[in-house]
Amino acid sequence: MLIVPEAAIADLIDEGDAFDAVEAVFAAMAKDAARNFPVVREALGHAEALYGFKSGFDAAGGVLGLKSGGYWPGNATKGLTNHQSTMVLFDPDSGRPRALVGGNLLTALRTAAASAVSIRHLAREDARVLGIMGAGHQAAFQMRAAVRQRRFDKVLGWNRNPERLARLADTAEELGLPFEAVDPETLGARADVIITITSSFAALLEAGHVRPGTHLACMGTDTAGKQEVDPALLVRARVFTDEVAQAITLGECQHAVKAGLLAETAITPIGAVITGAADGRRAASDVTLFDGTGIGLQDLAVAARAVDRAVARGAAAEIEI
Amino acid sequence: MLIVPEAAIADLIDEGDAFDAVEAVFAAMAKDAARNFPVVREALGHAEALYGFKSGFDAAGGVLGLKSGGYWPGNATKGLTNHQSTMVLFDPDSGRPRALVGGNLLTALRTAAASAVSIRHLAREDARVLGIMGAGHQAAFQMRAAVRQRRFDKVLGWNRNPERLARLADTAEELGLPFEAVDPETLGARADVIITITSSFAALLEAGHVRPGTHLACMGTDTAGKQEVDPALLVRARVFTDEVAQAITLGECQHAVKAGLLAETAITPIGAVITGAADGRRAASDVTLFDGTGIGLQDLAVAARAVDRAVARGAAAEIEI
Repeated sequence: MLIVPEAAIADLIDEGDAFDAVEAVFAAMAKDAARNFPVVREALGHAEALYGFKSGFDAAGGVLGLKSGGYWPGNATKGLTNHQSTMVLFDPDSGRPRALVGGNLLTALRTAAASAVSIRHLAREDARVLGIMGAGHQAAFQMRAAVRQRRFDKVLGWNRNPERLARLADTAEELGLPFEAVDPETLGARADVIITITSSFAALLEAGHVRPGTHLACMGTDTAGKQEVDPALLVRARVFTDEVAQAITLGECQHAVKAGLLAETAITPIGAVITGAADGRRAASDVTLFDGTGIGLQDLAVAARAVDRAVARGAAAEIEI
Repeated sequence: MLIVPEAAIADLIDEGDAFDAVEAVFAAMAKDAARNFPVVREALGHAEALYGFKSGFDAAGGVLGLKSGGYWPGNATKGLTNHQSTMVLFDPDSGRPRALVGGNLLTALRTAAASAVSIRHLAREDARVLGIMGAGHQAAFQMRAAVRQRRFDKVLGWNRNPERLARLADTAEELGLPFEAVDPETLGARADVIITITSSFAALLEAGHVRPGTHLACMGTDTAGKQEVDPALLVRARVFTDEVAQAITLGECQHAVKAGLLAETAITPIGAVITGAADGRRAASDVTLFDGTGIGLQDLAVAARAVDRAVARGAAAEIEI
C-alpha cells in the first residue's frame, strides 16, 4: 500500500492538476461511468465535531475509495487544521487498499477546482472582474483556481468580518491583481464572476444585486440550513451543480427547491455541459449559477492524481498492510 | 499514524481479546455511550464486488473510525481473500488519523466473538453439544470462539456441500472435540447451542427441529433477502441482537418482522443483557436466539485492541500522513 502524506501533496499536485481531475470526473458522472455513494455525516457529540465519509467509484478512471474526516472546531487552538481529511483508495479489481493520502490540501484544491470548472464552462469569455464573498482559508484557494480560467483584471472582496479581508488582498497581490473591498451590493453590481465561499445561514446576495451575464459559483453551502444567496437568484439564473441529489438536499438549491421556486429537473449537472450533452451559457445576458456541494468523487479524483504523480516520481512510500 | 498490517494481527489479538472488546462495546451501546453510523453498502458494478463501510464512535472507549471493504468473488483465483477489510481509526479529539489496521482476520475474530458473547450471556450453563451449520472460512472461527464459553464435549456439523465439512472436523479435532456430520433435523434435535454461519437465502432449520433450552446464534444473515432459520423460530424464541435497527432490516429478524410475526420491541439488544438492564435467559427451557448482523463498532473495538497491543509491544510502525 502506498502512503502519500499531507506534507508531500503541495509538490505533487497544483491547481491545474486538480482542475483536470475534477473536470474529468464530472464528465464521467454525466456518462454514468462514475458515481458517488451515500454520504455519512454525523455530529459526534464529542469535541463539537462533525465527522463522516464521502465515497464513490469512478469506473472510467478505475478509482474506488473514500474521504474520511470532518470538522473539529477546537483544532486551531492546538495548532491543527479544523478540517481534517484523509483519503483511502482501493484497488477496484480486488478491494485491496491501494493508497492512504493526506487529504487537507487536496480538499481545498478540489473545492477550488469545482468552481474553476464552472467558470471555464459557464462564465462569459470576456469576464474581467472577479468577486469573492468570504475570506476564510478556502477563499484564497478559490481565487487562485479561478484566475486561471479568464483574463481577470480586478478582484472585489467582501467578508462579514472585514479584518479578515487581508487574506483576499494578499492573495490578489500574489496573483498580480488589484483588490478592492466592497459591500455585497457593489460586488454584485460590478463582478462578472462571483464566488461565494462562506459559512452563512442566510442569503448574503440578493437577486437584484446581480447583473445580467454574471456567473456565480456558490461553494459554501454543504449542509441543510446553510444559505449564501437569495432563492430568487436561482429562479432568474440557469442553475448547474456537481450532483443534483446533493444540491437539492444540502446545497444552495435546497432553499429554492423547498420553496417550490425551482424544479429538480431544471438543475443541470455540470458534467453534462462538459461532455456537450447539455447547454451551458446560451446568451451573454444569462445569469449562470453553479451550486458546488462537494462530492466524494472529486476527492478521489485529486487523490488518485497525487498518488499517480508520487508513483511516477518514485516518491510514494510503500508499506505492508 | 500507526500501521498494523494484516500479517501482524494473529500475534496481537486472540479469541479472548476479541471477546472482551466486543462484549465491552455491546455494553457501551446499551448505555448510549457508543453508536454505529449508517452503513454504506454498494454493488460496484465491477468485478461483481460488493463494497462499503461500517463506522461508528465509541465515546466510552474513545474509538472513532471505520471499516472499509467488501466482497470480491474473483479474489480466490488470484490467491487473495474474497472478503477484504481495512480499518481506519481516528483520534476523536482532533480527527487526525490514528491507525490503519489490516482487517481480514479482525473481521473473522469479531464476528466469532459476537456469537461467543451471546453464548456466554444466553446459553444454558450445562450446554454440552455445539452444532454448526455452514462450513465456510468463518465457521472455524465461530467454533473456536464458542468452545471457550461452555464445557462442550461434542460438535455436530452440517453443510449444504458435505465435502467442505472437513473444515469443521479438522477444527473440532484441533480443539480436542469429537465431530459428527449430521442433517439439520438431527443437529436441531441434539445440539444445545447452534451457530448458523451460511450464505443461505432460505430457512435451513425449522422451528420444530429445535429443542427447548437451545441457544441459537444466527450469524450468516447480513443482507436483505438472506435467511437461515424458520421465522416461526423467532416467535418461539426470546430474540436478541447486536443492533435492533440492523436486525429488522438486514438481519435474521427481517423475515419475522416483515411477516408481522415479531415486533421490533420484542427484540432485546444483547448489550442490555450484558449490563443487566434486560433479562437474558429466564428459564432452562427457553429457546434464545441471537441475531448477529455485524456492526461497525465491533470492527473498531477489535482494531483498537490490536493497535493498543501493538503499541504496548513497540510493534506498531509509525508513518507520517
